[in-house]
Amino acid sequence: MIVELYGCSFEQINDLVRVERSLIEAVELSKATIVKPVFHRFSPHGVSGVVVIAESHFAIHTWPEYGYCALDIFTCGDQIDSDAALHFLKSRFEAENISIMEVQRGVLDVPPHQLRHKP
Amino acid sequence: MIVELYGCSFEQINDLVRVERSLIEAVELSKATIVKPVFHRFSPHGVSGVVVIAESHFAIHTWPEYGYCALDIFTCGDQIDSDAALHFLKSRFEAENISIMEVQRGVLDVPPHQLRHKP
Repeated sequence: MIVELYGCSFEQINDLVRVERSLIEAVELSKATIVKPVFHRFSPHGVSGVVVIAESHFAIHTWPEYGYCALDIFTCGDQIDSDAALHFLKSRFEAENISIMEVQRGVLDVPPHQLRHKP
Repeated sequence: MIVELYGCSFEQINDLVRVERSLIEAVELSKATIVKPVFHRFSPHGVSGVVVIAESHFAIHTWPEYGYCALDIFTCGDQIDSDAALHFLKSRFEAENISIMEVQRGVLDVPPHQLRHKP
C-alpha cells in the first residue's frame, strides 16, 4: 500500500519522537508484529523511519516543509489491518488529503496464506 | 522503484549475511548515503532488510522457498543510480526473471531538486 499524505501538520511530522511514536502506534493498531524499528531525523527538516515487522515493513518519509509524508505499508498474509494504521496516521498527522495505491507483490502460484513470514 | 526478482538462488537469498552484504553493496553502487541498516532473519526461511539512506530507503524481503525477493528502492533527487543497484542484485541473487514498476511519489508543485533530504 503506497500512501501519500498531503497537508500534514508541520509539528506532527517534523519531530522524530512524535513520528516514531505515531508509526509504532499505527503498526500496533494494524496488529502486525514489530521486529525492529529504525528512525532518523534529517537536518534541517524531515524524519525517515522504518519498522521491520514479521509481515514485512512500514516505512515513512516526511517533508514537513511541504506538509507531505510518504508512507509504505508492505504486508503479507491477510491478518494485517492496514486501514486501521492508515486512518490513525491520517488523523494524527492532521493530513488534509490522502492518496492510496495498492500493489500486489510477488505474484506466485502459491496460496497467499503460505506466503506469510513466521517469526 | 518496485521490483520483483523471481527464480533466485535459495542460498543467496536465505542467508542473512549474504543478503545484508548484497543490499549494502547495491546501495553503495547506487551512490546513496547509508544512514542505518537493519536486517532480520526469519525462521525457517527468509530475510527482511531495510537500509535507511539519506535519500529515503532500500528494502528487501526474501522468500527463498519460492526463489522470490521483493525489492523497493525509494529515492529522491536525481543523483541515485537505482539501475546499478538493481542489475547488481539481479546478478548476485541469480534471478531468472525481474519485473520493475516505477511510481512517482509526492507529486508536489516543487522543483525536484528541492525535495532531496540533506543529511
